Amino acid sequence: MRKPIVGVIGPGEKARKADIEAAEELGRRIADLGWVTLSGGRNSGVMEAANRGAKARGGTTVGVLPTSKREMISPYVDIPIITDMGNARNNINVLTSDVIIACGVGPGTVSEIALAIKARKKVILVLASASARKFFEELAHGLISFADSAEHAISLARKVIDNTLP
Amino acid sequence: MRKPIVGVIGPGEKARKADIEAAEELGRRIADLGWVTLSGGRNSGVMEAANRGAKARGGTTVGVLPTSKREMISPYVDIPIITDMGNARNNINVLTSDVIIACGVGPGTVSEIALAIKARKKVILVLASASARKFFEELAHGLISFADSAEHAISLARKVIDNTLP
Amino acid sequence: MRKPIVGVIGPGEKARKADIEAAEELGRRIADLGWVTLSGGRNSGVMEAANRGAKARGGTTVGVLPTSKREMISPYVDIPIITDMGNARNNINVLTSDVIIACGVGPGTVSEIALAIKARKKVILVLASASARKFFEELAHGLISFADSAEHAISLARKVIDNTLP
Amino acid sequence: MRKPIVGVIGPGEKARKADIEAAEELGRRIADLGWVTLSGGRNSGVMEAANRGAKARGGTTVGVLPTSKREMISPYVDIPIITDMGNARNNINVLTSDVIIACGVGPGTVSEIALAIKARKKVILVLASASARKFFEELAHGLISFADSAEHAISLARKVIDNTLP
Repeated sequence: MRKPIVGVIGPGEKARKADIEAAEELGRRIADLGWVTLSGGRNSGVMEAANRGAKARGGTTVGVLPTSKREMISPYVDIPIITDMGNARNNINVLTSDVIIACGVGPGTVSEIALAIKARKKVILVLASASARKFFEELAHGLISFADSAEHAISLARKVIDNTLP
Repeated sequence: MRKPIVGVIGPGEKARKADIEAAEELGRRIADLGWVTLSGGRNSGVMEAANRGAKARGGTTVGVLPTSKREMISPYVDIPIITDMGNARNNINVLTSDVIIACGVGPGTVSEIALAIKARKKVILVLASASARKFFEELAHGLISFADSAEHAISLARKVIDNTLP
Repeated sequence: MRKPIVGVIGPGEKARKADIEAAEELGRRIADLGWVTLSGGRNSGVMEAANRGAKARGGTTVGVLPTSKREMISPYVDIPIITDMGNARNNINVLTSDVIIACGVGPGTVSEIALAIKARKKVILVLASASARKFFEELAHGLISFADSAEHAISLARKVIDNTLP
Repeated sequence: MRKPIVGVIGPGEKARKADIEAAEELGRRIADLGWVTLSGGRNSGVMEAANRGAKARGGTTVGVLPTSKREMISPYVDIPIITDMGNARNNINVLTSDVIIACGVGPGTVSEIALAIKARKKVILVLASASARKFFEELAHGLISFADSAEHAISLARKVIDNTLP
């Protein structure tokens, strides 16, 4: 039986401190549960934090990179998938994940949340703003839920995984 | 000098009547101005309407298709670009367009608006809901504007094109 | 009824003089027949030559670009499709073309010929070397044919189009 | 330090018995060396055999799938990367691999070998036919080498990895 894959998404360079802390805590908890952490793979923001957290606990990390430039890969990524297809790779991130957890919302993150909803994937938003919450609730028709901490997000993710994977 | 390319995006099967009417009117006006209409290319909703409008006025239409299934292509598309890459093709739609006009907001549309903002493209939302308006204003930092009719959207698009193309 | 789309493929910077001359002649003849010329869209080698030939006769040209860098687009492309997905865009070139004509064989060209065969598209090789001819005949099982001039290639393409398009 | 990733490519449904045996032996040897086996991920031919061999020795397997249809994934893939982009995913396979080993040559395989050469990756062909050998030697200018067994291919791959990875 394969391990569940949890996508952790969020801003790179413009990530807020709270988003980075949540992402690192998510990485730790995902690893502790024996799950795989998937991210956009760059050495920046939420991506870097989730991978750093996962490796601190000996987890497995997959990064789906937009570029073939090796210097942009997080050193905490075990398996860098080199797409060289820019932000078109965002669709691969969501299709590959069994559940997606978003920490913060830049434009790239919003595209991934929307592509996830399009693909009927469950998405969990951590510390979402009021306007994001209202907007996505209208858009997602039950595919989206909201968490006020990394711990809360993991408990929601666990339910999705228990209901999805064989 | 090449013709400006205007991306008209919006829901397929779930498009509202007002969005379809706006899209068809956009297609007519884009053609009248000698511009190219670009869409997701399927024979459904906003895509079909924009292409039908453009062809009614002798315009040129490009459709960037997610699939290689020929029966899903709008008959009003002159140049069907067959990507066979599902919704990853949404990024091609926005990168190829000089300006993007959205009629309605399904999940696919939201992904395109977000990818456009990520790529620093200007986006015009027609008849946006209050929650969409608030959400995208916070996300887009001046890259997004709002129109209450197809005519209004075209006047906004004209300013973008005048400022962008050589 | 939409116009047939003919993909003209071949090396960029490393194209031979004979390949460039054949590509330009192909562009002229494709335009004279009222067909659309599709290429990889860059301002180099076979791509540039095919587009230049087509525009000399008032044809329509579509370029499927690997990059979003505007300075790499051939000025003879009417409709630049910006994929920003590197050589993964080669699959779009072949899926979008009704028939493919190759002038010369660099690595990118070989990938396109092979992807075309995989997609059951007909490919015509102009001035192929003996080793390319032998290799592709074994690989393609009737999907590939060989031409000794642009004129010959167009006559072969015409048969494919007559048998394929509605 | 991340583990080397070795791409094992070759036909699916049309793979020959010798190619399948070589692929399975490659999977076993890649796992024994502590390397990661990457493939196209489907439950067929060379892909399935390489993954089965790797898992028989407790290795790690990554499959880059062309489709989102879960029933097409090899059960021996630990980490299925779902691209849903058809054969455009072939470019991801080669960019992600530190070295590529081909067992047999269908059209998809040829596209991957050519994309690898385009990206300046080293490729090793196992049990290549005379015409494939001649063709690729002319195309690849030193990037391609030939092996007459899985054992030989692994010894060639080891040299590439020793010279490439930090």
